Amino acid sequence: MYLQTEATKWVYLFSEGSKEMTGLLGGKGANLAEMSRLGMPVPNGFIITTEACLDYLEKKALSFSLKEQIEQQIDMLERVTQKKLDDPKRPLLVSIRSGARFSMPGMMDTILNLGMNDQVVEVVAGVTNNAGFAYDCYRRLIQMYGDVVKGVDKNYFETVLTHYKNQKNYLMDTELMDEDWKEITRQFKKVYYSHLGEGFPQDPKEQLYGAVEAVFHSWNNPRAKIYRKMNGISDDLGTAVTVQEMVFGNSGMKSGTGVAFTRNPSTGETGLFGEFLMNAQGEDVVAGIRTPKEISELKQIMPETYDQFTEIAEKLEKHYEDMQDIEFTIENGKLFILQTRNGKRTSKAAVEIVLDLVEEGVISKEEGLMRLTPSMMDQLLHPTFVASELAKHSPLVQGLPASPGSASGKVYFTAEAAKEANAAGDKTILLRNETSPEDIEGMAISEAIVTARGGMTSHAAVVARGMGACCVVGCDQLVIDEQQRKAYTNGQEILEGTLISVNGSTGKVYLGEIAKENHGGGSSTLSKIVQWCKELSDVRVKANAETGKEIAASLELGGEGMGLVRTEHMFFGEKRILEMRKMILEDDKQAKIKALTNLKEFQKEDFKTIFSLANGKSAIIRLLDPPLHEFLPNEKEIPTVAEVLGISVEDLQYRIEGLAENNPMLGHRGCRLAVTDPEIYEMQVEAIMEAAIEVGEEKGIEVVPEIMIPLVSIEKELALIKESLVRKSETIFEKMGKRVSYQIGTMIETPRACLIADKIAEQVDFISFGTNDLTQLTYGFSRDDIGKFVQDYEQKNIMPSDPFQHIDVDGVGVLLHEAIQKIKATSKKVSIGICGEVGGDPESIQFLLKEGVDYVSCSPYRIPAALLTIAQQRIKGI
Amino acid sequence: MYLQTEATKWVYLFSEGSKEMTGLLGGKGANLAEMSRLGMPVPNGFIITTEACLDYLEKKALSFSLKEQIEQQIDMLERVTQKKLDDPKRPLLVSIRSGARFSMPGMMDTILNLGMNDQVVEVVAGVTNNAGFAYDCYRRLIQMYGDVVKGVDKNYFETVLTHYKNQKNYLMDTELMDEDWKEITRQFKKVYYSHLGEGFPQDPKEQLYGAVEAVFHSWNNPRAKIYRKMNGISDDLGTAVTVQEMVFGNSGMKSGTGVAFTRNPSTGETGLFGEFLMNAQGEDVVAGIRTPKEISELKQIMPETYDQFTEIAEKLEKHYEDMQDIEFTIENGKLFILQTRNGKRTSKAAVEIVLDLVEEGVISKEEGLMRLTPSMMDQLLHPTFVASELAKHSPLVQGLPASPGSASGKVYFTAEAAKEANAAGDKTILLRNETSPEDIEGMAISEAIVTARGGMTSHAAVVARGMGACCVVGCDQLVIDEQQRKAYTNGQEILEGTLISVNGSTGKVYLGEIAKENHGGGSSTLSKIVQWCKELSDVRVKANAETGKEIAASLELGGEGMGLVRTEHMFFGEKRILEMRKMILEDDKQAKIKALTNLKEFQKEDFKTIFSLANGKSAIIRLLDPPLHEFLPNEKEIPTVAEVLGISVEDLQYRIEGLAENNPMLGHRGCRLAVTDPEIYEMQVEAIMEAAIEVGEEKGIEVVPEIMIPLVSIEKELALIKESLVRKSETIFEKMGKRVSYQIGTMIETPRACLIADKIAEQVDFISFGTNDLTQLTYGFSRDDIGKFVQDYEQKNIMPSDPFQHIDVDGVGVLLHEAIQKIKATSKKVSIGICGEVGGDPESIQFLLKEGVDYVSCSPYRIPAALLTIAQQRIKGI
Repeated sequence: MYLQTEATKWVYLFSEGSKEMTGLLGGKGANLAEMSRLGMPVPNGFIITTEACLDYLEKKALSFSLKEQIEQQIDMLERVTQKKLDDPKRPLLVSIRSGARFSMPGMMDTILNLGMNDQVVEVVAGVTNNAGFAYDCYRRLIQMYGDVVKGVDKNYFETVLTHYKNQKNYLMDTELMDEDWKEITRQFKKVYYSHLGEGFPQDPKEQLYGAVEAVFHSWNNPRAKIYRKMNGISDDLGTAVTVQEMVFGNSGMKSGTGVAFTRNPSTGETGLFGEFLMNAQGEDVVAGIRTPKEISELKQIMPETYDQFTEIAEKLEKHYEDMQDIEFTIENGKLFILQTRNGKRTSKAAVEIVLDLVEEGVISKEEGLMRLTPSMMDQLLHPTFVASELAKHSPLVQGLPASPGSASGKVYFTAEAAKEANAAGDKTILLRNETSPEDIEGMAISEAIVTARGGMTSHAAVVARGMGACCVVGCDQLVIDEQQRKAYTNGQEILEGTLISVNGSTGKVYLGEIAKENHGGGSSTLSKIVQWCKELSDVRVKANAETGKEIAASLELGGEGMGLVRTEHMFFGEKRILEMRKMILEDDKQAKIKALTNLKEFQKEDFKTIFSLANGKSAIIRLLDPPLHEFLPNEKEIPTVAEVLGISVEDLQYRIEGLAENNPMLGHRGCRLAVTDPEIYEMQVEAIMEAAIEVGEEKGIEVVPEIMIPLVSIEKELALIKESLVRKSETIFEKMGKRVSYQIGTMIETPRACLIADKIAEQVDFISFGTNDLTQLTYGFSRDDIGKFVQDYEQKNIMPSDPFQHIDVDGVGVLLHEAIQKIKATSKKVSIGICGEVGGDPESIQFLLKEGVDYVSCSPYRIPAALLTIAQQRIKGI
Repeated sequence: MYLQTEATKWVYLFSEGSKEMTGLLGGKGANLAEMSRLGMPVPNGFIITTEACLDYLEKKALSFSLKEQIEQQIDMLERVTQKKLDDPKRPLLVSIRSGARFSMPGMMDTILNLGMNDQVVEVVAGVTNNAGFAYDCYRRLIQMYGDVVKGVDKNYFETVLTHYKNQKNYLMDTELMDEDWKEITRQFKKVYYSHLGEGFPQDPKEQLYGAVEAVFHSWNNPRAKIYRKMNGISDDLGTAVTVQEMVFGNSGMKSGTGVAFTRNPSTGETGLFGEFLMNAQGEDVVAGIRTPKEISELKQIMPETYDQFTEIAEKLEKHYEDMQDIEFTIENGKLFILQTRNGKRTSKAAVEIVLDLVEEGVISKEEGLMRLTPSMMDQLLHPTFVASELAKHSPLVQGLPASPGSASGKVYFTAEAAKEANAAGDKTILLRNETSPEDIEGMAISEAIVTARGGMTSHAAVVARGMGACCVVGCDQLVIDEQQRKAYTNGQEILEGTLISVNGSTGKVYLGEIAKENHGGGSSTLSKIVQWCKELSDVRVKANAETGKEIAASLELGGEGMGLVRTEHMFFGEKRILEMRKMILEDDKQAKIKALTNLKEFQKEDFKTIFSLANGKSAIIRLLDPPLHEFLPNEKEIPTVAEVLGISVEDLQYRIEGLAENNPMLGHRGCRLAVTDPEIYEMQVEAIMEAAIEVGEEKGIEVVPEIMIPLVSIEKELALIKESLVRKSETIFEKMGKRVSYQIGTMIETPRACLIADKIAEQVDFISFGTNDLTQLTYGFSRDDIGKFVQDYEQKNIMPSDPFQHIDVDGVGVLLHEAIQKIKATSKKVSIGICGEVGGDPESIQFLLKEGVDYVSCSPYRIPAALLTIAQQRIKGI
């Protein structure tokens, strides 16, 4: 509860405030006060504080002391304006506006023209010589007051007006004459009386207190509450109320009103950007009944006023050190600034404006970077649907937004069908229950990938992000029959070839094609930002990447090499998969070895490409991770594969069955493969070392292979495998007559590995936390199956957020913290990184920086956002 | 290194030692000293200490001071015996025996008849008037010395003897005459010379030092090392050496030798139990060439000696407070005790002897309990194969010993086939790739269950232990074709109906039937032990049990109620599974509710049975845990189920497919079911509450239901479900007009739950650690799939032990420790238990007791072992 002492100051004159006082005076009030202090032409007024609002909300009544202070300020306002409330000659009219600390546009209420009554309206009619204007003002007050203060739905008033216009065959408000507005005012008063059983209050003070209470009250209206929840604004702040002398842009042909940005909010281009209407009020601009003119045209109509406004706009931008969104009104040739605030802008504009402001010397690089958000970086990299076009479509299904972007194309249910259609020139969208490594090619050529199952870190999601491809996963209303080449959802059938559009940023999927637009600042814009970030970032950002395209993209986007090269992705080419299958399924030892030898040659070529592209930068190669059965043929391929292996279909089916697992995620994979079948990792190490030596010689650079052993949970597991890899490397160096320095590291991705991180740290050069698996194991959630219940969990608010997207600080975070402490206590030399999905998530990166990681590794297209996050934290001194 | 000062005493006379000095004098030496002190007729001698051994092993030579002390003691021995080494009239012969702190029977070397040479043999021949005996002694020394001291393989000597006997057509050694032995001695000396290039040493001192060195050396022979490793004996202890005057049981018809136990080592029955041979040496008894006589027959032959021996045996048992295994020799009518030690015995005998000794007042209950081992308790409950019969079979396959016992029966590959065969009167063994809850009935009627896949905590293993049924899992050399009703292993085909035998304690499976024997002490024996244990145990032991049979067994075996009632096991009856399937698959809300209502009635009956049997004891009921797809029909059942549901087969297949999961262990199960489908748990709670109220009224007892929510990983998950259960309970109390007290608890079985254990503890009355799932998640191991690599892990010594059998102290143990600390810091009232498999494992229980759990819950048949473990720890003050 707020202590209400004699000293409590509830009300501030504009001249008593400043822009720093947003907490007490609200954003609007503080800015009005600031402009007033700067000598800008601001209509006079005062501000009732947010504290007064909280006091009111607690006591459910305006306190005596508040009323007393309002009376005092009204007196002051009357003296300054030389007008008086209810004055028969110079009546004072005021506006009552809400204004919270954080902008909540349109969420709370406003009342204009307050002070009008049956007497004042006549005075205004006389003074302005415009009875229509005066009665239009009066009827607006009755409507707003009735709606906002007394709860009479504004539609009752609108209906009266519409009905009247229909009767008279008027199309537009401007056709209404003086007598019409008088009649409408009479009818509005009748509506007011009929709903409330009392007449419209004639006492301006009564109006004033009613309006203030109503604005206070509107802090807690449902739409304001929802807005705050969505935007993370506390419910405890309250709103301030600004009481300000009315100025009228609609008081004649030398009057007008407008809105202008000091720079283009879509593109960031310099120069005023805005529009205005002569003889109009702010509402008219918004309502869109008359077409406003471009701000530049004001120069012809009122050159002095235009120059004055231009000067003020420049001054305000300089003063606020940012692009401003300024509302102004001209009353009988006199310019008033009603509001200024930092202008909303697109991501592209935001970035361009920051670049310009820094170059203009208005702000520092650090200041500039702090004005950007990681999501802007993401948006710069992906096109979006044109908002007006999108609005015409309602989504067919909703899934999880796995990889941003907007795409349209024809539906195909298998990677093969998509490849064929693509070869024939079609844009394709791959629609599957879930994807597997065999779908990679079909994914690569598709505009988007949509799956019925899986979560944010499912195969489809991870691979699509790696490719920068648009992807929606876990559309669980979607039933896909891949064999019949059909999908069903909510009674609708989707056939192969159907045109759909996919929004990877919202998870929505639409029927038909939707027009797209590209926000992308030129690559030079992005590079500049990335460059600034890198100057400030001591923590490196690497890429999870293995194809040439991904690696090139990651380096262009600011990545410092590869933090995770997944070797299993390399086994799916047509020839490779066959050798892989031979290696797994052959009974004959010699045939197995032959397959391994062939695989080695493929791998070596891959590694040579990677080392060449990395060109001396880091490339952490993870040895084979998935269970072997992921490489086995599907039902359809079995006969062919059986023939190649020279065994019967039944025999092959037996062997495949023998490799099946109930819970592959917890099965025979990662370093466990190396314990049972050491020759696989040895083959990979041979390929790596040979590639490193050859690329080193060819390019005249030093290639230092970094080899990563996955899924360790026991210290001896690691020791055994490390020993075999070192031994193998030595034999290769001997064979080739040349050696390279190399590093051996491991992933910590099981809870147990976290618990024995000290014993792991003793053995390795680097450690990368695989937060995807770690999160799965910590919760006991399978990311492939979470789709079955995660929406219930979100609806019921059980999880604050998806732990696969944002690190779970209370669970996974605790394990990670303790592990990092143990690693650091054991060895200062071990480099610590993250290569799970959260490695690219700004929220998670903030946590990871505090924990003291040396690098994060993420999908190439998330690198700029990651770099910005790190730079911002460092600027904040974290 | 041992400091060798003047004060170091390397050699002890018998009269200088006692039974407490086993560390220094070895077990045998200390006991000889003890008997000597007790005035028993022990051949004179002295002991060289284990410290001397260690000194020797370090320096690789006998120290001067040691030799000096040996010389002194030899002098002393010569004086006492009035014999002398190498004496032409009364030559002294001695034995040299090893004797470590812990008995290592047969692992180290012994040399007898030391002191024999070309001269002494003639003296002995003269004195005994038995040249054959004298030369037999001599040739034995040459052989033993050659073998043990000089490394000449004893087979070279044996071959000579065999060859000689063949030449002469002798069948037995007793047929050899004086001249034969002389000739053999000559030939043995030739063998010795030809291998070593030197003659057999004639100096008894040289023999003595050589023998002592050899015995010291034998501490590190390979078989001794392996034995120590297997038995957990340190390599740093060294062996003592006993040098003792020879006595000869083979010196005539008034001589003899024998071994006797003071009680029957097989049954524990009181009274001497043993055998002897007249005119024989100890070796002859062991060699089995002549058939020894029962010890009681000695009474007829030498009544006085028999009485003397009986008296000594009684005295020794009283003195050592345990059943003794005594070796004796009679030399010309004079009795000598060569050795006494605590006798080895069967589990049954061990228990019976302990009961008797306590009743006889020889030892206290605590002392008695400390002499038992948890594995004895297990053995008492299960029959074993007759060892001699077992020896005739070699195993067909080897799997993991999942549930102890020995069984024979005919192989069946499906639960149904097993049931049919059982109904027709056959004993059956269920052989499957793995079992599922649908196999329960087939498992229940089978003698044993064998699976090709799965680990120690797989479904088959857990259920079999619950049933007390013999079970072997993870026989991965076994390929089972359930459809063809065949299995293959190592090229062998096993058809349905083949008779096999299964050893659940070793994991071995044999072809054919093997005879069995029952060790079981009567149930009164076991009850007495269990009763004593319970008097000493503050930590309760509960059962994981749900069927009437299991519950009854658990209560009889000392269980304090049920720590885990798995409700899912109740859904598999024919009618129940149908309702379950309806509940899962029906589209129609009404039909779903109807199915739930029917299920509720079934559950209620189950709970009434459980509460009635528990009769006021605890019964912790775990709400539904497995994923729903576990209840769905298999391929074969689909048409029938589709018909019942009134939908097409395709539609049913669709729905089933929609419920499939990639990693069911990490999927939509446990409390996650209650988040998406709250009505299931609500149904269960309704059944529980109604059952509790009704049983309470019928039996006039207070039933306090304990309801356990599984698989929690987020505090809000628990809060949400708890709230719904409480709300539901209240409506039931209202409906029934009666209420019961109840408790709500949860399982901690995910790593995350451990990390937030404090937040969980705030909400519940009890917490049970589910170490099975916790271990799976901590390692990232699926217990169903671990079979694919666990044997490699064991062979390569990567894991100290199977973490599903013995708690993984460094990983799971750390999580558990931290969680328990958090729980205790949050609330002292929350009861803490374990219901995973390690809850019945003695090694793990020791850890859990230190962590301060309030109860453990395990399979009914593991309760006695668990109780004994707890009692023993408490006796030790832990």
